[in-house]
Amino acid sequence: MAAPPSDFVIGFDADDTLWHNETIFEQTHGRYRALLARYHDAATVDRTLFATEMRNLELYGYGVKGFTLSAIETAIQLTAGKISADEIQQLIALGREMLAHPVVLLDGVAETLAELSPRHRLLLITKGDLRDQERKLAKSGLASHFRDVAILSEKNEATYADIFRRQAITAARFLMVGNSLKSDILPVLALGGAGAYVPYHLTWAAERVPEMPQAHGRLFQLKTLRELPAVVAKLGWS
Amino acid sequence: MAAPPSDFVIGFDADDTLWHNETIFEQTHGRYRALLARYHDAATVDRTLFATEMRNLELYGYGVKGFTLSAIETAIQLTAGKISADEIQQLIALGREMLAHPVVLLDGVAETLAELSPRHRLLLITKGDLRDQERKLAKSGLASHFRDVAILSEKNEATYADIFRRQAITAARFLMVGNSLKSDILPVLALGGAGAYVPYHLTWAAERVPEMPQAHGRLFQLKTLRELPAVVAKLGWS
Repeated sequence: MAAPPSDFVIGFDADDTLWHNETIFEQTHGRYRALLARYHDAATVDRTLFATEMRNLELYGYGVKGFTLSAIETAIQLTAGKISADEIQQLIALGREMLAHPVVLLDGVAETLAELSPRHRLLLITKGDLRDQERKLAKSGLASHFRDVAILSEKNEATYADIFRRQAITAARFLMVGNSLKSDILPVLALGGAGAYVPYHLTWAAERVPEMPQAHGRLFQLKTLRELPAVVAKLGWS
Repeated sequence: MAAPPSDFVIGFDADDTLWHNETIFEQTHGRYRALLARYHDAATVDRTLFATEMRNLELYGYGVKGFTLSAIETAIQLTAGKISADEIQQLIALGREMLAHPVVLLDGVAETLAELSPRHRLLLITKGDLRDQERKLAKSGLASHFRDVAILSEKNEATYADIFRRQAITAARFLMVGNSLKSDILPVLALGGAGAYVPYHLTWAAERVPEMPQAHGRLFQLKTLRELPAVVAKLGWS
């Protein structure tokens, strides 16, 4: 007979924690650099695009549509208006390809969620574009493991505190699993929760933090999600 | 002494129910037509843009960023690639202006929410871009009246049923207030709830329905939100 669900809650980030994402952006960046190679070297293209994205972040938020608009704006700027309408159409097509890209799960994700979901309340807590995140979750085949889904425009102490309040979560009984120290781990540790940090091999510059936080007994670094049940056991939650 | 809150729930749409929105799109459409007037008449521009928006809706969802991308795509198509980078930059600027536009409340909204919120559970239920809807709610000064906020990628029977489940709402004790028969009224009536239809003077073509639904005693048409407390009284909820 299955044990009753515990009152512990495990939150999961989505992009680059459950499925590949930054690799898709990286491919797009490569094609973007190629498109502008007649005008500027790769480093200048990358630096200027990132500066545009950061300038537009407050207005556009995260996600592919804002990225596409920033890529068009940057291309116009870097070519001093010489970019052709056909090339801009290629940028729109690049954005569309990203949105339609298949969802490829990371190693061990499906098995680990299937193992944990009967015993714990699992939440998906992600940021980005509403439609795009919903579509990826539906494509992933993982939706049935999550008791609830929160798609946020930003992940920080205030937005996690809001989720804790709405979902009646006690911070000391909450573990957040994710690949971003900045968005998934630091705010949760600050609120008194625990963090399972699963680095992805690529990290978008806007998510980088200077050093690993210290939180004895509440912070775990994992190579893959397969190690998560052992972390849950170590926390005494199973 | 104030009465305790009732267990009735009132949901409010946001754009064109609480604040002006379609008027901003209409201004943008005017400037878009002017930009393309050398190439095509206004009706062709409108028809082609709308067709692009509908084709992209599944991928982009609702909101200003998707609109801007569709406007760029349509402009390239309608000018056979002759549109200049400078003109495309103007389209990006148009989109940005829409996102940064001040929030102007509709008549009676602030007073009506202030009157109803102490006695009923008010929810904001809107669709569109996450960041943009959050920003508008913050700018509106109305956030404190709402017990919870749901920003959806689509409003239909399934997404309302999901809200009812998550928020422990009984359909027969739920009233939805909005300007769109298609998104705010029809799905809620179908689930057994009540609807207060407050038409806005402009309706986006994608939200139009052929005729007024029939739902005796559960559907009310209002001229402004000022009439809402009387509807609530008629339902026997006050």
